[in-house]
Amino acid sequence: MPAATPYLCVDLDRLRRNVRVVAERAAAQQVALRPHVKTHKSPEIARLQLVHGAVGITVATIGEAELFARHGCEDVFIAYPLWLDERAAGRVRELTEKARVAFAVDSAAAAANAGRLLGRTPVEVLVEIDSGQHRTGATPEEAGAVATTAVRAGLEVRGVFTFPGHSYAPGAAESAARDEAAALAAARASVEAAGIEVRVVSGGSTPTSAHTDTSVVTELRPGVYVFGDAQQWELGTTTPDRIALSCRSTVISHSGGRAVLDAGSKVLGADRAGWSTGHGRLPAYPDARIVLLAENRAVVDMAGAPLPRLGTQVDVVPNHVCSAVNLVDDLWVEEAGALRAWPVAARGLNC
Amino acid sequence: MPAATPYLCVDLDRLRRNVRVVAERAAAQQVALRPHVKTHKSPEIARLQLVHGAVGITVATIGEAELFARHGCEDVFIAYPLWLDERAAGRVRELTEKARVAFAVDSAAAAANAGRLLGRTPVEVLVEIDSGQHRTGATPEEAGAVATTAVRAGLEVRGVFTFPGHSYAPGAAESAARDEAAALAAARASVEAAGIEVRVVSGGSTPTSAHTDTSVVTELRPGVYVFGDAQQWELGTTTPDRIALSCRSTVISHSGGRAVLDAGSKVLGADRAGWSTGHGRLPAYPDARIVLLAENRAVVDMAGAPLPRLGTQVDVVPNHVCSAVNLVDDLWVEEAGALRAWPVAARGLNC
Repeated sequence: MPAATPYLCVDLDRLRRNVRVVAERAAAQQVALRPHVKTHKSPEIARLQLVHGAVGITVATIGEAELFARHGCEDVFIAYPLWLDERAAGRVRELTEKARVAFAVDSAAAAANAGRLLGRTPVEVLVEIDSGQHRTGATPEEAGAVATTAVRAGLEVRGVFTFPGHSYAPGAAESAARDEAAALAAARASVEAAGIEVRVVSGGSTPTSAHTDTSVVTELRPGVYVFGDAQQWELGTTTPDRIALSCRSTVISHSGGRAVLDAGSKVLGADRAGWSTGHGRLPAYPDARIVLLAENRAVVDMAGAPLPRLGTQVDVVPNHVCSAVNLVDDLWVEEAGALRAWPVAARGLNC
Repeated sequence: MPAATPYLCVDLDRLRRNVRVVAERAAAQQVALRPHVKTHKSPEIARLQLVHGAVGITVATIGEAELFARHGCEDVFIAYPLWLDERAAGRVRELTEKARVAFAVDSAAAAANAGRLLGRTPVEVLVEIDSGQHRTGATPEEAGAVATTAVRAGLEVRGVFTFPGHSYAPGAAESAARDEAAALAAARASVEAAGIEVRVVSGGSTPTSAHTDTSVVTELRPGVYVFGDAQQWELGTTTPDRIALSCRSTVISHSGGRAVLDAGSKVLGADRAGWSTGHGRLPAYPDARIVLLAENRAVVDMAGAPLPRLGTQVDVVPNHVCSAVNLVDDLWVEEAGALRAWPVAARGLNC
């Protein structure tokens, strides 16, 4: 049992359903599924994804890759444009002794640097493409030159990938999926025009998943879908009855005629997109909004509903579940009326 | 040594100076200093504050109180309106065997509940007052009734306190300090009118600290001042050369003509006030702004400055240092050219 509220709890039936539904859809679409485990950072959930047919996992850091490889994940893609130094290259080399490993490059300079440091290490690279989020990534037109540099530096090129993160806005999913397909198709053509085979064209995000162009994309890397969160709820990509993670909290005050919960940004995360209607949502009170989030308090405007009594437990769905999970050492899983701990084993592994 | 960037590093000279300056000001003003350790969650820094004359510490949770009591802090105020149950009351009772303990009540109901559960435990309460942030707290006028209920329930009342958190906006510090003084003076009068002695009138926040009305306030509880952060920089309560904590990061990409760093919201925190100019600041590039913060990336518009070379290390000051510190297991302290780890021992202790 957790010491007290607030704690994050997982509805195992919903989690299993979310994992299964997305796996079945990928199978029906004949695209490979390589889920991003940065969302849950939990070996137990990665195993569940692999049992349901995931071809491997996606991570964001070498540290996450090391952790999941130690827990038996044998095929790991670090979807991150690593800028390697001697020490990082040594870690990648060691990793290849435990798992099939790939990572991202998004420039000729990064590819040359990686090739120089990794020599004949059995590792593959994918060229990251910017499909519209403008975060990292080469342009589709640059992909061929990046891939060529990688090959000349002695690296094996697996293909191209993007994260259409500009799908995270109301009504943006469909156009972001179109951008994703156009950018990946152009990048594939650019790499092939350089005479380099493209075996994998990887995309995907939870919001775009209903709109993926499977004539282009051969692999998907969604993350948040395992749990869902208030962002996905407000974007319309999930519904409250399918959200598998929430923060159990206690009503500690009625100050100012509002319900104040003991869940704050130190367990929910402080993420708030411009279009979010608050700092998290309460499934039991869909009209209520968290109007102020402090480090250890959420102030809830109940929108006319009666205040839940002091001491009552209330569940809060965080805005961005990846941030919430990264704040705790354990998820508490409800099964057969009891709670057991699943370690967030990769929590805090930022490097 | 940390495995790689990103990691949080502390400039020890600046930290010591910040601790000393605020301690000296409090001594000159003849107010007690009871720093809020939720900012650093580090026993080493609490010891430094106590050595410089702090009368005790402030925490936000029972878990933080337990941790710091185990590390020798003998006087702990839980500045949080606890809604106790049997289990939490047991923890408070145990805590009183190790330290002098006080906690907050902000309603007659909470005071009655606490008195019922704590019986004759040697613990004190302070009545929390809402001075304008509208988070938790009774109105000043209610303070007497809350204190009366506490006394009748068998609790010892130490005094009244507030957190003038509405000071966190440009130009708001002075008026928030006036609100703080007015609310606390009225609350003191209300409690005294009920025939209950007020021994402590506690206030303070880092932004208001230059404006404290010491004719009213007898104790201050600032937290962020030990480090400073980008919020304090942009509020004008500190300057970049006094900020004692930053996130060391590496330039991993020049995608889109911008510098992309490997520090993201999973090490900086996602806090962003409406008035912040970005998602953190770069002291070496004061005109640059972090225009996009992902979980493991910060995208920096360099505002015309040349892009730092790929692989270069760059320091980022987080917007809200309390959130950043709570994301890591260790702070890395630079002293005599070497780095050593200070555990963030109370990280994640949300309950």
